[in-house]
Amino acid sequence: MGAVQARMETVLQRLLPRSEIVPERLHRAMHYAVLGGGKRVRPLLAFAAGELADADPARVEIVAAAVEMIHAYSLVHDDMPCMDNDVLRRGRPTCHVEFDQATALLAGDALQPLAFQILTEHVVADDPGAQLEMLGILAVASGSRGMAGGQAIDLASVGKTLTLPELELMHIHKTGALIRAAAVLGARCGRGLDARQFGRLEHYAKTVGLAFQVVDDVLDCEASTATLGKTAGKDAAQEKPTYVSILGLTRARVLAGELRAQAHAALSTFGAKAARLRELADFIVLRKF
Amino acid sequence: MGAVQARMETVLQRLLPRSEIVPERLHRAMHYAVLGGGKRVRPLLAFAAGELADADPARVEIVAAAVEMIHAYSLVHDDMPCMDNDVLRRGRPTCHVEFDQATALLAGDALQPLAFQILTEHVVADDPGAQLEMLGILAVASGSRGMAGGQAIDLASVGKTLTLPELELMHIHKTGALIRAAAVLGARCGRGLDARQFGRLEHYAKTVGLAFQVVDDVLDCEASTATLGKTAGKDAAQEKPTYVSILGLTRARVLAGELRAQAHAALSTFGAKAARLRELADFIVLRKF
Repeated sequence: MGAVQARMETVLQRLLPRSEIVPERLHRAMHYAVLGGGKRVRPLLAFAAGELADADPARVEIVAAAVEMIHAYSLVHDDMPCMDNDVLRRGRPTCHVEFDQATALLAGDALQPLAFQILTEHVVADDPGAQLEMLGILAVASGSRGMAGGQAIDLASVGKTLTLPELELMHIHKTGALIRAAAVLGARCGRGLDARQFGRLEHYAKTVGLAFQVVDDVLDCEASTATLGKTAGKDAAQEKPTYVSILGLTRARVLAGELRAQAHAALSTFGAKAARLRELADFIVLRKF
Repeated sequence: MGAVQARMETVLQRLLPRSEIVPERLHRAMHYAVLGGGKRVRPLLAFAAGELADADPARVEIVAAAVEMIHAYSLVHDDMPCMDNDVLRRGRPTCHVEFDQATALLAGDALQPLAFQILTEHVVADDPGAQLEMLGILAVASGSRGMAGGQAIDLASVGKTLTLPELELMHIHKTGALIRAAAVLGARCGRGLDARQFGRLEHYAKTVGLAFQVVDDVLDCEASTATLGKTAGKDAAQEKPTYVSILGLTRARVLAGELRAQAHAALSTFGAKAARLRELADFIVLRKF
């Protein structure tokens, strides 16, 4: 995990426009948003899924960087005053606090096309047609029927009582879409997976994505701001429906364990090549931050 | 022009997610931002450049829609309180006034990947490799070295005295990059243009883009809010450097005429196929709104 995280820091640094280039302040804000932190869960998933398909890591690092840029932009915009209005992220001031709101808005706006740009400038598939399809997968996962849509469902749910299926629907869009894209795109950098195997990988990614969110909700309730590097107890304060608010802490923990088991089951036919994916499911559920 | 504008309304309507689909409010905001107005200057340029290269209009309408979605998202974000804080656009309340800031932010965020998505789902070039390149052109034009970068330069210039070259640099990024992309992508839908001809087309697009901005500054100073459909006199009120503040009204008008002549000169070797591009240069300079 440490090796992938270190590699991503180097790769992202290389793919971002240098901060001495005009407009400097915008480029500095983009660096600030992307570099120096984060668990890099999506890149880890991309690399682990890449191993499943014997993908060239030089390809996987590009799709991982593209997914991570989309993720980083979404955090910048989500933290803004008109959204979650948060001041702390990854143990540092959020982008609009460190810079200003207009710069944070533009940094997010500029990270998004950069994610697509790098997928046109580097070879990540055997032929351009397959690469176009991969670009489409990232675009759909980022848009109104994916991550941005999940954010909108989240907004609409503040102060409401959601059922468990409604909460799940929100998370399948808000975080699940991009997590699934990370896994699928990592595997698409390689070859040899058939449609059924892709189906299993997607099922794995879906359960892992939900598990990630359940654990996030548990940690938001249990852990301290210092451990998390972001404001703890925020969900309850903002009256956001969470797995903990619907299920209670104990049943939420049980659900996380069940999802972990489901993730492992989805990988059962893959053998040793899925070792990293299994480890990642364990990490996502057992993490303390 | 009316035919292209009507066609774009239909095409954009078809390419946007239907507003009855979840999340409905987000989809309504996306429709509001994109449909029902605008001069459609960028689509007009794409179609006119497409005629130069005998491009299939069924391809051109897709690249025109992608460019227009990027343009529409940028207007939504530019109008937000942390940016220009404007309440009127195309004669209607701006998106964040009609909906709310969070929804406007997300509508812009979701329009951007949709622009890239449609360029992966529709054939706009003879081979997927060429199509990937076209996608890259749009991504670069939208990003920190294009439109978003120009917006950042604009922010940094408020309250400052700019020289004419500095002002030009800002506009070449802020509006010029996407205008150039519209023309280049329109022509790329067809075939037969060589590198020199593309050079001339880009030069045309650059001068037309600057002319558009000079005329915008003149109109902001001269015309009424009712005629413009957006708040008039805003530049002076916000202490933004403009062609009028640097050159004065008379010399700004002269400059617009010179740029129009340059645009025509760039097209001189093209003959009858450039008729629409010539008309468009005239429209951009002679328009009253």
